[in-house]
Amino acid sequence: MEIIRSNFKINLHKVYQAIEEADFFAIDGEFSGISDGPSVTALTSGFDTPEERYQKLKKHSMDFLLFQFGLCAFKYDHTDSKHITKSFNFYVFPKPFSRSSPDVKFVCQSSSIDFLASQGFDFNKVFCSGIPYLNQEEERQLREQFDEKRSQANGAGALAKCPVTIPEDQRKFIDQVIEKIEDFLQNKEKKSLDLEPCTGFQRKLIYQTLSWKFPKGIHVETLETEKERHIVISKVDEEERKRREQEKYAKEQEELNDAVGFSRVIHAIANSGKLVVGHNMLLDVMHTIHQFYCPLPADLKEFKEMTTCVFPRLLDTKLMASTQPFKDIINNTSLAELEKRLKETPFDPPKVESAEGFPSYDTASEQLHEAGYDAYITGLCFISMANYLGSLLGPPKMCVSARSKLIEPFFNKLFLMRVMDIPYLNLEGPDLQPKRDHVLHVTFPKEWKTSDLYQLFSAFGNIQISWIDDTSAFVSLSQPEQVQIAVNTSKYAESYRIQTYAEYVGKKQEDKQVKRKWTEDSWKEADRKQPKVSDPCSHTNSFAATGTTGKRNLSPDPGEAGSEDRESEEMSDSELEQIDSCADPFPEGRKKAKKLKRMKKELSLAGTVAESSAMLFEVPDTW
Amino acid sequence: MEIIRSNFKINLHKVYQAIEEADFFAIDGEFSGISDGPSVTALTSGFDTPEERYQKLKKHSMDFLLFQFGLCAFKYDHTDSKHITKSFNFYVFPKPFSRSSPDVKFVCQSSSIDFLASQGFDFNKVFCSGIPYLNQEEERQLREQFDEKRSQANGAGALAKCPVTIPEDQRKFIDQVIEKIEDFLQNKEKKSLDLEPCTGFQRKLIYQTLSWKFPKGIHVETLETEKERHIVISKVDEEERKRREQEKYAKEQEELNDAVGFSRVIHAIANSGKLVVGHNMLLDVMHTIHQFYCPLPADLKEFKEMTTCVFPRLLDTKLMASTQPFKDIINNTSLAELEKRLKETPFDPPKVESAEGFPSYDTASEQLHEAGYDAYITGLCFISMANYLGSLLGPPKMCVSARSKLIEPFFNKLFLMRVMDIPYLNLEGPDLQPKRDHVLHVTFPKEWKTSDLYQLFSAFGNIQISWIDDTSAFVSLSQPEQVQIAVNTSKYAESYRIQTYAEYVGKKQEDKQVKRKWTEDSWKEADRKQPKVSDPCSHTNSFAATGTTGKRNLSPDPGEAGSEDRESEEMSDSELEQIDSCADPFPEGRKKAKKLKRMKKELSLAGTVAESSAMLFEVPDTW
Repeated sequence: MEIIRSNFKINLHKVYQAIEEADFFAIDGEFSGISDGPSVTALTSGFDTPEERYQKLKKHSMDFLLFQFGLCAFKYDHTDSKHITKSFNFYVFPKPFSRSSPDVKFVCQSSSIDFLASQGFDFNKVFCSGIPYLNQEEERQLREQFDEKRSQANGAGALAKCPVTIPEDQRKFIDQVIEKIEDFLQNKEKKSLDLEPCTGFQRKLIYQTLSWKFPKGIHVETLETEKERHIVISKVDEEERKRREQEKYAKEQEELNDAVGFSRVIHAIANSGKLVVGHNMLLDVMHTIHQFYCPLPADLKEFKEMTTCVFPRLLDTKLMASTQPFKDIINNTSLAELEKRLKETPFDPPKVESAEGFPSYDTASEQLHEAGYDAYITGLCFISMANYLGSLLGPPKMCVSARSKLIEPFFNKLFLMRVMDIPYLNLEGPDLQPKRDHVLHVTFPKEWKTSDLYQLFSAFGNIQISWIDDTSAFVSLSQPEQVQIAVNTSKYAESYRIQTYAEYVGKKQEDKQVKRKWTEDSWKEADRKQPKVSDPCSHTNSFAATGTTGKRNLSPDPGEAGSEDRESEEMSDSELEQIDSCADPFPEGRKKAKKLKRMKKELSLAGTVAESSAMLFEVPDTW
Repeated sequence: MEIIRSNFKINLHKVYQAIEEADFFAIDGEFSGISDGPSVTALTSGFDTPEERYQKLKKHSMDFLLFQFGLCAFKYDHTDSKHITKSFNFYVFPKPFSRSSPDVKFVCQSSSIDFLASQGFDFNKVFCSGIPYLNQEEERQLREQFDEKRSQANGAGALAKCPVTIPEDQRKFIDQVIEKIEDFLQNKEKKSLDLEPCTGFQRKLIYQTLSWKFPKGIHVETLETEKERHIVISKVDEEERKRREQEKYAKEQEELNDAVGFSRVIHAIANSGKLVVGHNMLLDVMHTIHQFYCPLPADLKEFKEMTTCVFPRLLDTKLMASTQPFKDIINNTSLAELEKRLKETPFDPPKVESAEGFPSYDTASEQLHEAGYDAYITGLCFISMANYLGSLLGPPKMCVSARSKLIEPFFNKLFLMRVMDIPYLNLEGPDLQPKRDHVLHVTFPKEWKTSDLYQLFSAFGNIQISWIDDTSAFVSLSQPEQVQIAVNTSKYAESYRIQTYAEYVGKKQEDKQVKRKWTEDSWKEADRKQPKVSDPCSHTNSFAATGTTGKRNLSPDPGEAGSEDRESEEMSDSELEQIDSCADPFPEGRKKAKKLKRMKKELSLAGTVAESSAMLFEVPDTW
């Protein structure tokens, strides 16, 4: 269902209902660009740490606009054993709602725009009919503005607390206004009085004076015509005054809700606490929080806390497809290819039907890169893969729910694009810390190309190159033993320089500390000659496993507090263990159980040092 | 005529022809935003110097995209006494033409996008069908890339000059390729040989080896399929080889031209040297140069030189309408209002017809903010105003040409939006230096609003406030004598501070000098306590009148060097003088002549100190 500005309000209850009923959601976003940096390659070095990657995405991607948001709600119908879907495709645009509202600037990247254009994306719909939104700070400010205006009208606001002294040259003007009003109150025929248009400052003075001079019996209101504003005074009894107040208040509340706009949908998803599935969803999650909640926090640890507050359960289908037991049987994890693959054996495409009144998507005729469609097939992929995990159980479970323990190992782990040895960002605790003892940091003249690096390392067999910038790259050798040979050889080289990854990280930390020293103790002379050599990986140790302790304090809506009820889980940990331990008479069954165990092991590596020589994940290059 | 990517090439000759025939052009641009700064108000302080304004626009406006360009060519038909118009509306978008081409990022401002959307602007046409373009540096780089590729194929390029040593592990591969080719050359039946797909580095090695091993008799080419690239070797005699080379060269030239795209139109306009008319055109001119020539220069002086190189004759209809004799009879100088006003007496709407094959615009049903239409009515406004000047002559001249001396005083003076006392940017020399001895610089707490300033200066009668930022503003008093009173009074104030404009500029200059001292002689200790007080306006003195001496060295096209022929001018300066000096028997005639004289005087103030108390220009607030 396509939702734009004009049909947003009348369909919002349908969105809320879909969210309330759903077992889980799939989401997808379309953006006006991917990377504002020098190039996408530079943005995603193969040996980024999760913290570095977060900083790069935050710096280079958040100025783009998320202008289409796909939401597909899935609900399992036990009677007919099928999934009922409600899919929404929202067009989103920060239309300024008044002259004082934020005038958002956003960046567009020609390649992204050109790509979307080639896919038939409707930019007119975004810019002409996009639903507005506010982040939490903007919402708070607007609420405050309304409150202040109201209390000003009531004569009880900030204005009344700090009254302006009436300047000498305004005294006559104000006296005349008071006189007029007194005449008006005497005149029984007249119901209302229009004052002459005047300046904002004069209106302020009038409001202030009338609030103490005529605390009862009149209603003061500013009317706005095309060119000017003027004050209207009406005679009202207390009941009428209250009625008008309430009417005004209701109207303001509606204006406020209209301005908060699409953010209300995100708040509802967040407040449901239900599982949110996405494909390669790190950027979607970052954009969603940045655009509809608040600017992203300064460091990764805070981002993790914030994210688990907003979305307590996330699942990334790209990570799932790149992990055992899927890794071995899925070659290409791009969304379109994955969707195709999951239609074939050993997978079983799920029975899915769109709810009444909701248009259905046909996966045979692709509508890729429409956010609603992408969300829909992301959900299908999740179901297929989850069911496959169920099929490995003994006895096989044909339909695995979104609350099954089977999929829990994938919760809150977001796929990391093109990082060679850290497959995911772990939202619930510290990240993987791969050894990288086979990695070299190479510095060279800016004329060098990939081929020059291949040539330089031609004696070392297979190498992998990961560019950092014009004059440096990481080169990973196939054997850690060769690292020292390469470093030693380079000692006599003039044009290039090689150091180990550990040396590189150490120097970087050192520079950071010296810099900090300079800022913190700038009055002391920093001793540049005796810097302490720090643990190369110490900065990643700071990811204490506090991610899940964050409070759900981000949403202003009271809403339901997220169903944390786990009684209906289909399989306990002990059940899973049982599959492993019990003697299965059929080798096939044992093999299946092993697959599940391998998956659990693979995903529980967080916090321990991953063996880089036994890399468990592929590094697909497709989005 | 609407021009998009698909019909650009087949219509380009029509554009060139229109440019060649035209007497003058009118242009207009539509942008994705106006100001990237905190707010448009902050961007345009009423007391900006021209240099400050240039810097602000350069910093805050150049990241937006000029995505629609209107060009209307006007040619006078003497037989039928009417103007023939050819109007073009170009959609422009930096579609990347290859993987290595620049991926332009541009900013959109929601308020501007929302405004254009409300005017029915077609964003899909821009993003899906916009004509690509390159600036001069990008064009040069692409040309170089093609040249290098060609000389690489010829074995004479940079590659051949610095040959890569074939690494040991590649030697066998290369030897096998050579063997294959030798077999192929022996085989009389086979015309061509497809090599196995290989890496870019291997292709490089193959090209290099073949260029010296088989300098004649074969043609080497890389073919690209969807997934990979492979080399094809064909047997060719010298003639065939040359034919293929030429074919390839022609194809490359076409690709290059396609990539340069819309910039070719701008080059043609520039090379014509003809009068280019625009309405409030400073931003249009800046964007056009920035987007299609090169990034804007660091300072205003260079910008002036560059602009007069690219567009030797510019005329701004907003400036014209704000100057005598028009100022007195035109109240609103916004384009739409101006167009309406110029249909009424004493003006005479010109006879205009669109050329055959060109759709005509109907000014009765407004299509405002379509660049082609805006350019068209800008041209109409220019003709009406020029003809009005002609009507003031004795005897009256009913049709004033674009090369008439009458309009020359308006050449190369671009309207300055919302600057109180400097009506225009003078491209051909130093700018006006108004006295500003009635202006105060006020600093105050950030809570202050306009009303607080009005209150503070309530004793001084009429004042004009021009905000600089949250905590400062210029306040101009109606009488310069009051300035010292205000400064003296403020000496005892704690919350605010008042200084004269001269003091403010002096301190600013001082700070600049200290800063420069710090950077230039950072090893010396800068003496902060004895700075020299410099002439507050000295920085504007540096605009030596060298603007017109710039060489036309910006365009790569040889093109025609701009018709500088002035023999056909309709009226010489002496004729104009004659009107002034000769005794005109009719008072009406004398009045008219006075009007022309007043206009000339007004516009020749550049370089002299303008009397701010006798401000000649209004400061319209409409775009």
